[in-house]
Amino acid sequence: MQDAYQTLILPDVQQMLEEEDLRGLSEFCKVVHPAAVAEILEELEDSQIWTILDQAELPLRVEIFEYISLRRQTALVELLDSARLSNLLELMSADDRVDLLSEMPETHREDVLRLIAKAERNDIRRLLSYDEDSAGSIMTTEYASLPANITVRDALAQLRQQAPNSETIYYVYIINEARKLEGFISLRELILAKPETRLSEIMQRDVIRFKVSEQRAVVAQELGRYNFIALPIVDEDDRLVGIVTHDDALDVVQEEATEDAYLQGAVAPLRDTYEETPLLIILWKRGIWLLFLSIVALMNAHVIDHYRQSTGANEGVPVGLSSLTTLILLFLPLVMASGGNAGSQSATLFIRMFALQPTETKGGTDNAMNRSLILREFVIGLCLGVALASLDFGVAWLWFGRTFAESAAIATTVVTVVILGTSAGTLLPLMLRRLGMDPAIMSNPLIAAMVDVLAVVIFYEIASVFVS
Amino acid sequence: MQDAYQTLILPDVQQMLEEEDLRGLSEFCKVVHPAAVAEILEELEDSQIWTILDQAELPLRVEIFEYISLRRQTALVELLDSARLSNLLELMSADDRVDLLSEMPETHREDVLRLIAKAERNDIRRLLSYDEDSAGSIMTTEYASLPANITVRDALAQLRQQAPNSETIYYVYIINEARKLEGFISLRELILAKPETRLSEIMQRDVIRFKVSEQRAVVAQELGRYNFIALPIVDEDDRLVGIVTHDDALDVVQEEATEDAYLQGAVAPLRDTYEETPLLIILWKRGIWLLFLSIVALMNAHVIDHYRQSTGANEGVPVGLSSLTTLILLFLPLVMASGGNAGSQSATLFIRMFALQPTETKGGTDNAMNRSLILREFVIGLCLGVALASLDFGVAWLWFGRTFAESAAIATTVVTVVILGTSAGTLLPLMLRRLGMDPAIMSNPLIAAMVDVLAVVIFYEIASVFVS
Repeated sequence: MQDAYQTLILPDVQQMLEEEDLRGLSEFCKVVHPAAVAEILEELEDSQIWTILDQAELPLRVEIFEYISLRRQTALVELLDSARLSNLLELMSADDRVDLLSEMPETHREDVLRLIAKAERNDIRRLLSYDEDSAGSIMTTEYASLPANITVRDALAQLRQQAPNSETIYYVYIINEARKLEGFISLRELILAKPETRLSEIMQRDVIRFKVSEQRAVVAQELGRYNFIALPIVDEDDRLVGIVTHDDALDVVQEEATEDAYLQGAVAPLRDTYEETPLLIILWKRGIWLLFLSIVALMNAHVIDHYRQSTGANEGVPVGLSSLTTLILLFLPLVMASGGNAGSQSATLFIRMFALQPTETKGGTDNAMNRSLILREFVIGLCLGVALASLDFGVAWLWFGRTFAESAAIATTVVTVVILGTSAGTLLPLMLRRLGMDPAIMSNPLIAAMVDVLAVVIFYEIASVFVS
Repeated sequence: MQDAYQTLILPDVQQMLEEEDLRGLSEFCKVVHPAAVAEILEELEDSQIWTILDQAELPLRVEIFEYISLRRQTALVELLDSARLSNLLELMSADDRVDLLSEMPETHREDVLRLIAKAERNDIRRLLSYDEDSAGSIMTTEYASLPANITVRDALAQLRQQAPNSETIYYVYIINEARKLEGFISLRELILAKPETRLSEIMQRDVIRFKVSEQRAVVAQELGRYNFIALPIVDEDDRLVGIVTHDDALDVVQEEATEDAYLQGAVAPLRDTYEETPLLIILWKRGIWLLFLSIVALMNAHVIDHYRQSTGANEGVPVGLSSLTTLILLFLPLVMASGGNAGSQSATLFIRMFALQPTETKGGTDNAMNRSLILREFVIGLCLGVALASLDFGVAWLWFGRTFAESAAIATTVVTVVILGTSAGTLLPLMLRRLGMDPAIMSNPLIAAMVDVLAVVIFYEIASVFVS
């Protein structure tokens, strides 16, 4: 649907921008769903985004803004003066606002906080203080709450008052004067109850709740198990401090799955999506793992060397008679591991990227993006390959005492194999997706196995040139 | 929370069962949340579960039953006679009912369908017919819908009527006489609107909708992007046929992430959780991949053999002079791949299992379960190792023309390394979790790298015994 939106509406929006058709842009913001508007805006430049957003009334503007990705939001607020920034922040929902503020550098954040009313500021400070993996970090403080001793009729009247400042009014929490959580009632139950009934008679008293310090993954999991729209979060004294809603739970489940997928493929977790992450950060997040794995593989070569020398002696074969064979024997596992691991990383990142964008648009933007990603992956392969090769060259030459030519052969092979690995890890999942198949079939071991075969051929060919 | 429930309440429930305290059991069903009751019931035997469920009134009984895992539901309904089964099915929600029916063998399913009223039966037949990966397979037909020309007051009255048969009344879809989707309005908007307003004046007309045939992953993704509680599903003629709700979307995201994680670790997707899947199915789902990967690795040995012979001749070294070294050179990559791949599989399955149960209970049941899983993993390692070793033995002996002793050395090494791999893949994530660390750090390449080092030592030691 929205991808259709995007391809259909984006050119119209661009034309309206060119023609400065402000009324058209205002209409566009009003008619299209805010999430869809946000998605289209992300294709434009920062200043263009503000031109369009300014055509929407403030509440709608804020709603659209909240659907824009956090990374882009951070860039966008830099264009705002203090007055407009404080308007925006005051209307943003508590959890989105805190996410945005936590992206800002700490000094700048303090300046911004000064623009916000004191009560709200303390609320924000508290939310900012929770651990990143805790329930506190994903909850919102904008929940609907009522006392127990009022009637259903009064409750509905009060809910109408609370609605503009509540993330959801479908779940209502009953609290006492000390804000302790005493009960729960859903709007569905309120609608079905007689108007004169007191909430205390119909509320559920055994409310499932979590502490602010609970792991966010646990809260998300339990929300899913109970099919709840929201779960209440309490402090150490059982006072209600926030709610975690179903959409936050879905985000957490996605993020945790992404993090686990990356780790499984030996990529340190990224803050943003793969497409959005800058090259240098990716090099670091991948390189650190590859270097570590190469060190393990070099230990491996050391073990093989130890056995080769002892068994060579046992069998009466002069050690190092066939230097080419020895070279292959010692370093083939290292070469294979380098290519396989780099390939696994690429496959992992691409497969997860596809999983997070299940709709493939057949349009031109998608192809262009794929091309630039493939190119970037090649650069990454080259950089990682050179880094690993340098390590391997040094260790082979200085530690294992191989000749310069032999060490150079190892290094050249590693660069080649790593580039091949990243290319295979990128192109094969992409191809499968194009063919309408599940790209996830390109499992890490499969990529590794295919790269292994290539690694043998390349290592022998390169080594025989260098050594002879 | 619920884990606390489980450890606190399970012994009480067992005692009530022993003492036949039916009133106590009835109270337990009433007071505790149905999802928590279901979780405790799953610890008991099928007949005990029915003893307890029978103490709850039918609607509550059905609600608890729906929270029980599908696998267990299937076992439970086999204990029911036709009358009780039809009572149960008629009250179950449309999507849960279809899930249960689709688990039954087809002949039995037809018998069961005969017990259900004709209108419902056709509804079920249609839901059963949708592709497993489609929106149709996860939607429910129990949505709230209204015509556009009524007032808000009448709408609220009609919603009260529809509530018992609607999965949610928070989102209301506006349809015309031909059931075409014309608009959308949330209960929040209804509550805030003036009672005499007509729905047509306040409803949203640009409703985001998906076709029944759309991929379920796409629908789940979009529901999350828009932070919706539900999304409407239409047929080819734009008639409303169902809704997908937020809890279904969460399940889909979890299931897709699990499937991708398994594939990434070279395990064919499982229907149930890892703990629940029978041994033989796991052997098949893992074995098929390992065999395939071994065949690739054997091709690899063939390539090395080709190069070894040609370069050996070039360098004037008699081919096969040091048979031990040749053996290692040819088959070390195969041995390493077998151990690494089997280990990756185990690590993948355990890490994902932990991710799906973020709460670790420190109680005895958890330890006992871990012990039995570790034992099972050992048996799996043994079986997979023997299968791969048989293949490798045959190919080494018949294809590569190695001696019987050499082929036996390869086979013995493969069995040992595969068992070591599965043990490492099982125990290391478990250990990390015990230490309070993220088990996902034990990435596939890391497990493989560690198993590689062991593989070298074991191969050399075993081969030197067999060959000399």
